[in-house]
Amino acid sequence: MTTTFRIQAILEALQKVTSKQEHFVPLHEPSFQGNEWLYVKECIDTGWVSSVGKYVNKFEEMLADYTGVKHAIAVVNGTAAVHVCLKLAGVEPNDEVLVPALTFIASANAISYCGAIPHFVDSSYETLGLDPVKLDHYLMEISVQRKDGCYNKITGRRIKAVLPMHTFGHPVDMDALLEICDRYKIELVEDAAESLGSYYKGRHTGNWGKLSAVSFNGNKVVTTGGGGAILTNNDELGKMAKHITTTAKKPHPWAFDHDHIGFNYRMPNLNAALGCAQLEMLSKFIEQKRTLANMYANAFLQVDGVKLFMEPSFAKSNYWLQVLMLEEQFASEKEKLLKAANEAGFMTRPVWKPLHEISMYQNCPKMNLDVVGSLARRIINIPSSPGLAR
Amino acid sequence: MTTTFRIQAILEALQKVTSKQEHFVPLHEPSFQGNEWLYVKECIDTGWVSSVGKYVNKFEEMLADYTGVKHAIAVVNGTAAVHVCLKLAGVEPNDEVLVPALTFIASANAISYCGAIPHFVDSSYETLGLDPVKLDHYLMEISVQRKDGCYNKITGRRIKAVLPMHTFGHPVDMDALLEICDRYKIELVEDAAESLGSYYKGRHTGNWGKLSAVSFNGNKVVTTGGGGAILTNNDELGKMAKHITTTAKKPHPWAFDHDHIGFNYRMPNLNAALGCAQLEMLSKFIEQKRTLANMYANAFLQVDGVKLFMEPSFAKSNYWLQVLMLEEQFASEKEKLLKAANEAGFMTRPVWKPLHEISMYQNCPKMNLDVVGSLARRIINIPSSPGLAR
Ligand SMILES: Cc1ncc(COP(=O)(O)O)c(C=O)c1O
Ligand SMILES: Cc1ncc(COP(=O)(O)O)c(C=O)c1O
Repeated sequence: MTTTFRIQAILEALQKVTSKQEHFVPLHEPSFQGNEWLYVKECIDTGWVSSVGKYVNKFEEMLADYTGVKHAIAVVNGTAAVHVCLKLAGVEPNDEVLVPALTFIASANAISYCGAIPHFVDSSYETLGLDPVKLDHYLMEISVQRKDGCYNKITGRRIKAVLPMHTFGHPVDMDALLEICDRYKIELVEDAAESLGSYYKGRHTGNWGKLSAVSFNGNKVVTTGGGGAILTNNDELGKMAKHITTTAKKPHPWAFDHDHIGFNYRMPNLNAALGCAQLEMLSKFIEQKRTLANMYANAFLQVDGVKLFMEPSFAKSNYWLQVLMLEEQFASEKEKLLKAANEAGFMTRPVWKPLHEISMYQNCPKMNLDVVGSLARRIINIPSSPGLAR
Repeated sequence: MTTTFRIQAILEALQKVTSKQEHFVPLHEPSFQGNEWLYVKECIDTGWVSSVGKYVNKFEEMLADYTGVKHAIAVVNGTAAVHVCLKLAGVEPNDEVLVPALTFIASANAISYCGAIPHFVDSSYETLGLDPVKLDHYLMEISVQRKDGCYNKITGRRIKAVLPMHTFGHPVDMDALLEICDRYKIELVEDAAESLGSYYKGRHTGNWGKLSAVSFNGNKVVTTGGGGAILTNNDELGKMAKHITTTAKKPHPWAFDHDHIGFNYRMPNLNAALGCAQLEMLSKFIEQKRTLANMYANAFLQVDGVKLFMEPSFAKSNYWLQVLMLEEQFASEKEKLLKAANEAGFMTRPVWKPLHEISMYQNCPKMNLDVVGSLARRIINIPSSPGLAR
């Protein structure tokens, strides 16, 4: 028995779940139904919109509380957060950083900002993220241990860190990866930009890496307009993260001195105010997104050739962007499906172009990337706003 | 006849001008008395707080209009703006960039982000900014022309660009500097972070450099919470500035491809909304700040040993931060004065520590910096909020 692939059936399932009445269902829409206006108005009324004000501290506390990570440092966006995480993990110019080829380009760009080189790793069908087993075999083959860490035998460069990414909110198998990092002496930094509200074995993502990065861009689970955060359980790194993201000024009531080449990566109080109101709603949003995943899973059960991607067994995911997975035999229909869905008013998109195929990164070191290739051919993201859940 | 230096007389002049009634007069306070609420609320009501929405475009148009520069690109802050300006001016790793030693550390940090080296230049008593005459003599001595530009004979590095900064809003002598850049084949980038509303010979600052950077931090003439802008009259650079500050994604309705190592430096719509309301008030703020300068100038006429710094003859300044200049013989009283003024509730501060004295930059190339030394000993900034004018 061969299955068939009917675009019309997919559109009908999308219609059933989203109950589209208007002409257009966005991919992911923010929802402001809590204290957003109250807090933002207070910033404007008091004049505290910028680098001083109570909301940045409050936002950081709420975030540490929610994730269970000891220190949260609010920054200007997720890209800045990844950049600083890598820097504080000790990534230096000409180091290599292991990173999935299937991630948003910011992960690789942040590596470039450090003067380091992305080294692309394959993904797993179970998590959509980095495959620890395949990585282990690969490192066995290409790496060698030296006094100051792990080296790539082929390029001669140090492999300083690995940057797993919890794809669309689905956690990577962290226990396996931690063991590898330990054995090969590679620093672990989590790109948790997409996984606020996602848990691995009962503990929030962002708790495993030496440092982790979160994003609050407008398309994320909760938003600050633009924003991000650095998470770490290490006191010293937490202090340093705050210091170098705020120009590394030495404390003094009026004089200016700076002890590092710092950054202006601070999140304005205005944006943090919005974020505080959003964090108050986060648990509700996550519930809604998980409900939506079940609605989609059921609706697509009836549709041949596609399946909703469900969280790995060790995870509780935030289902940030819902993933519709095409069977390999129908991958060639993807563009046609995207065109039809977008024209019908369901905003859908493919996953990112794998980074080793992007011109600036095509000469970077990489392992066999067959799974990434397959996933890239087969994934489409479908409307995922929490408000769609009923 | 020797003058005397009486801290009490200075405090009295500060009291007279600021009419302090509360316990504290800040250095520079934002003022939100226009459409700030209206525009920000609209962002929250419509959900457009992030990378999409009308206010970023509107803000960019208003800014281009106000400054007379053809293209304005809103970014996340002034530091990011300087970084991108230098990058697009062609600054590459191991180049040198001429920059005043007397500027905020962000100017030098942005040079470092490019992998380039700050090369410190002396300032002028007339403008508080870069001294073109002294720079000319210095370049005559240390530089040599090669096929691809100007080289430092001593370090062997290329001198790619010069980054003048309009200190506290007072414009540098741009005609003289332009002539030098032309003669020595050095790119001109203006750090106009502090000079929105300042004119040199009737034309707004930011119009002279190949590219220029503005800041909208909370302490600036107008604020977006955190924010900045890149200004340029060059069409191609304007387009490229927008492109690489928004992750350099190739235009496509759904697919992801990127053609440069870009940045996430975009200004969120929420912050741009605040900025639009602020720009509507800018002309009024500048008038108030110029009035305040005259009030201070008069008040300090009566006080021995200090003088209010007034704009150079070719300029119309925004008087962003008012500068009280101590006579050299009383420079040793500065710390005492700062302490007394801050304790009395007048927020005052010294100018930045000269960058060649900051640990990370102390081994950078530099010319004789006597004027910077003298200015750094003698400048204090005094309360400058536009609302203080009457
Ligand atoms: C995996 C990943 N890393 C980093 C980022 C960067 O975050 P931001 O857009 O807030 O800079 C994002 C989101 O855009 C992301 O999805
Ligand atoms: C001279 C100068 N350059 C750059 C900046 C950086 O601007 P921002 O604080 O918006 O990053 C500032 C202001 O802080 C400044 O005064």
